[in-house]
Amino acid sequence: MEGFGVHTSMWTMDWSREGATRAVEAAAHYEMDFIEIALLDAPNVDAAHTRTLLEKHGLRALCSLGLPKAAWPSQDPEAAIVHLTQAIDKTAEMGCEALTGVTYGGIGERSGQPPTQAELDNVARALEVAGRHAKTRGILFGIEPVNRYETHLINTGAQGVEMIERIGLDNMFLHLDTYHMNIEEKGAANGVLAGREHLRYIHLSESDRGTPGWGTCDWDEIYAALAAIGFTGGLAMESFINMPPELAYGLSVWRPVARDEAEVMDNGLPFLRGKARQYGLI
Amino acid sequence: MEGFGVHTSMWTMDWSREGATRAVEAAAHYEMDFIEIALLDAPNVDAAHTRTLLEKHGLRALCSLGLPKAAWPSQDPEAAIVHLTQAIDKTAEMGCEALTGVTYGGIGERSGQPPTQAELDNVARALEVAGRHAKTRGILFGIEPVNRYETHLINTGAQGVEMIERIGLDNMFLHLDTYHMNIEEKGAANGVLAGREHLRYIHLSESDRGTPGWGTCDWDEIYAALAAIGFTGGLAMESFINMPPELAYGLSVWRPVARDEAEVMDNGLPFLRGKARQYGLI
Amino acid sequence: MEGFGVHTSMWTMDWSREGATRAVEAAAHYEMDFIEIALLDAPNVDAAHTRTLLEKHGLRALCSLGLPKAAWPSQDPEAAIVHLTQAIDKTAEMGCEALTGVTYGGIGERSGQPPTQAELDNVARALEVAGRHAKTRGILFGIEPVNRYETHLINTGAQGVEMIERIGLDNMFLHLDTYHMNIEEKGAANGVLAGREHLRYIHLSESDRGTPGWGTCDWDEIYAALAAIGFTGGLAMESFINMPPELAYGLSVWRPVARDEAEVMDNGLPFLRGKARQYGLI
Amino acid sequence: MEGFGVHTSMWTMDWSREGATRAVEAAAHYEMDFIEIALLDAPNVDAAHTRTLLEKHGLRALCSLGLPKAAWPSQDPEAAIVHLTQAIDKTAEMGCEALTGVTYGGIGERSGQPPTQAELDNVARALEVAGRHAKTRGILFGIEPVNRYETHLINTGAQGVEMIERIGLDNMFLHLDTYHMNIEEKGAANGVLAGREHLRYIHLSESDRGTPGWGTCDWDEIYAALAAIGFTGGLAMESFINMPPELAYGLSVWRPVARDEAEVMDNGLPFLRGKARQYGLI
Repeated sequence: MEGFGVHTSMWTMDWSREGATRAVEAAAHYEMDFIEIALLDAPNVDAAHTRTLLEKHGLRALCSLGLPKAAWPSQDPEAAIVHLTQAIDKTAEMGCEALTGVTYGGIGERSGQPPTQAELDNVARALEVAGRHAKTRGILFGIEPVNRYETHLINTGAQGVEMIERIGLDNMFLHLDTYHMNIEEKGAANGVLAGREHLRYIHLSESDRGTPGWGTCDWDEIYAALAAIGFTGGLAMESFINMPPELAYGLSVWRPVARDEAEVMDNGLPFLRGKARQYGLI
Repeated sequence: MEGFGVHTSMWTMDWSREGATRAVEAAAHYEMDFIEIALLDAPNVDAAHTRTLLEKHGLRALCSLGLPKAAWPSQDPEAAIVHLTQAIDKTAEMGCEALTGVTYGGIGERSGQPPTQAELDNVARALEVAGRHAKTRGILFGIEPVNRYETHLINTGAQGVEMIERIGLDNMFLHLDTYHMNIEEKGAANGVLAGREHLRYIHLSESDRGTPGWGTCDWDEIYAALAAIGFTGGLAMESFINMPPELAYGLSVWRPVARDEAEVMDNGLPFLRGKARQYGLI
Repeated sequence: MEGFGVHTSMWTMDWSREGATRAVEAAAHYEMDFIEIALLDAPNVDAAHTRTLLEKHGLRALCSLGLPKAAWPSQDPEAAIVHLTQAIDKTAEMGCEALTGVTYGGIGERSGQPPTQAELDNVARALEVAGRHAKTRGILFGIEPVNRYETHLINTGAQGVEMIERIGLDNMFLHLDTYHMNIEEKGAANGVLAGREHLRYIHLSESDRGTPGWGTCDWDEIYAALAAIGFTGGLAMESFINMPPELAYGLSVWRPVARDEAEVMDNGLPFLRGKARQYGLI
Repeated sequence: MEGFGVHTSMWTMDWSREGATRAVEAAAHYEMDFIEIALLDAPNVDAAHTRTLLEKHGLRALCSLGLPKAAWPSQDPEAAIVHLTQAIDKTAEMGCEALTGVTYGGIGERSGQPPTQAELDNVARALEVAGRHAKTRGILFGIEPVNRYETHLINTGAQGVEMIERIGLDNMFLHLDTYHMNIEEKGAANGVLAGREHLRYIHLSESDRGTPGWGTCDWDEIYAALAAIGFTGGLAMESFINMPPELAYGLSVWRPVARDEAEVMDNGLPFLRGKARQYGLI
């Protein structure tokens, strides 16, 4: 998790052998340092196939997920531990460095209330057990605050830090996302400021999840804050142009937020990578 | 709907005689030109009481709402027409100028799919009948696009314009909201650009719905675009610090987004009003 | 003056036959709609050569200048009229559409005092005579406000409008420049707002006159305001990478503000042209 | 030099006993932590009077200056050393903490060329001797990069750092100014990033030197970068509303950039102080 990478949702949300091949080849073509793989169905991923692909193309990788309702930590921490353990093992088998994302709940999990102490206790317990297991496998374990509509549990960088410091594992890290920060933080850079001690990974996603540089995110402010805290983690471009129906409800992507892959890769990628160079981040 | 006003959710979400009195007196204290009243329970509002209060304080007003599930136009346009007609009548009785808001659906209405043609046809039918009724009562009738998580029907200024132009009533108008624009539009000013022919009202709401000026909205860009299109409609500050549980799920306000009323009124109000003067909008 | 063009200082500040050929070919290569030619030494320009070049490449053009000290309108309006008349004639002979720039003074002209009424009267007299002459030749005649350090006469869009309206010629226009606006206007869009009735041309120049998109200019705010006023004039990229010593003092470009031409053309041009398309300006 | 202060040009540019009294009382009224005093005529300042005033009001202070032509370090380092030594002694006698500003030249010093090695060597020699003297008096000694029109010697944070590191005195510091950064740096925060190791003082001055918050400076980006580097130095509001003629040429302030003191103090001060609190800087 360093350098400039991309979420493979640009090319597939299905990590079959065919999807994996297409995504890894595309990422290599665009000279990415790493990729993020959505681990939505860990048991059915051919880990050896992915590991070979990554090695062949000299790409590093990490995995991310949100949890299915039956394994929401707030409700059933034991089920969450089983699910996360399986995902961590698959992550290790694939030769990936980290498991991150909404590791603390479901995408779209909302009780209609602020998080209760019992919910947060359950989440902390599941994350701690999973985080310890990740450590034994040499895997970093991240949590990504997402906006108020996608969870009621952890919306801001400060809330993410609070959970990480409560657990106290040194392989746990904060994973921010500019799309969510644009809604939740007081100023484009504030999540970076709040999370500085634990931030190792950031999704560079535009305000509408479309083509980076064409929305309302203040990229100079974000990059300047990253440079100022001495950020050395991974920068991952994320745009949502291939969204399977089972994710569309939680993520609420109804409209095409970018015309096509070419619009993102020809405009958003040079923009984000150029700014990262301007600020000395890559 | 001209000048600078405020959504009365600053002081109450309950338009009882007591709530109305408190809100109108507070708005008058802050020298507002108008107020917006949330018409969540029209039948139980004492219209004469509000009318007298408004006249006493020389305040103009408009009403807003979202529709209950039983009256979602996409599903049951006839029920929606009944609900909207009742609200329009109450609006007129209160001496208010307009009914606006999510008049085309529920706050939080999401099918998990893009809007279907049948849903949009139903919405158009309900809005047209309600809009004609509003016209007979001398009431302006608005639609407010809201973000992808609060509806799947109308998220952008362009979509709002499309619906308004389809119906073709001259008392219908576009009502934008900077909070939603920050998520949905390609650039802070783009909703204003797309909606210029029909825009008569705008919510000035910060990116986290907290204290205006302390978030990620680019206020200069928004105000400059309003000035450039020659906007002469109403500017309404909106912050969510008094949210009843029945709205919290749809709006997903779990955290206190501002410390208290004083934080908003002492910081956000002078900031927004000062910028409006700087750009010649009031 | 419509579409997207470039100031030829990108390639030469010497409008000899050789310089003209290099600049026109380069502009055509980058598919510009028009070019701006610095008319620093009008008598020695081979007008027929330039006209033929422009026709061959299907490029439109306009000319710009600042006045030498001996022809400062504030001090010697008659000398200024002679100089401007000669430049207007050459502009017409070259087949160009307009003469613009610091047509009201010298670049670096500063008295150390606010402009006096006598200075402004002299300027108005010279501009009126020159403007009338331009009209007989079918040439548009512009004035470009520049920042406080480059003139004490006209620094803001509002001051430019005042001069244009005082003179009252319909072939006179306002020519803004984002670099100067960044220093002088209250908000990135305010010059556009103040100048809306007379604005036909704008220099897109970064805050340090280097690579557009890599400085402090708020390009979304600028483009949004242009779109909102219905701007249909010319957009001209300007960066200073070839500055002859005789201009360096007035313009105070001591440092290389961009690495080289490639940095500007590979980064700044796609950025500016892409945003212009995003806002429907080209 | 910590906390929030103000340049006393808000109230006087004449540090007579009368001017000093008016300025100190005004600064105390606005609850400033410190003031900056323009030391334009050190020999005629009544140091004991100022020291008593500062002690009475519990205000800290620092001094600033630009050098007269006869004492430009680039041309006559020995004369500069005499001038700076005198100013440092007066600074110490007044009970001030630092001498800063354009300590390396004249405001408006421009050769029309990039700085030569001989000029920079002269500057370094003068600053080193003056800096050592300041150290013996317990005085911090700063250099403030200013824009290309006010000097050709040191325009950016990076150039300031280069000079400080060349000299290598631990009582020397970088003093940035947002007005100059807005013109010279690649991004609002870049001077802060470049200067992070040496930055102890910053002028908060709007893009037109008028009312802070009403111009083109990106204040969130600036404050976020300050917070991110862990800035603990002084924040000083600066607006130019009282400019004596002898400074007007170098600073080129022809127009009233703010209506009056009240406009700045009622709008700019709460804006800047509020943002400083939002970012945890005071």
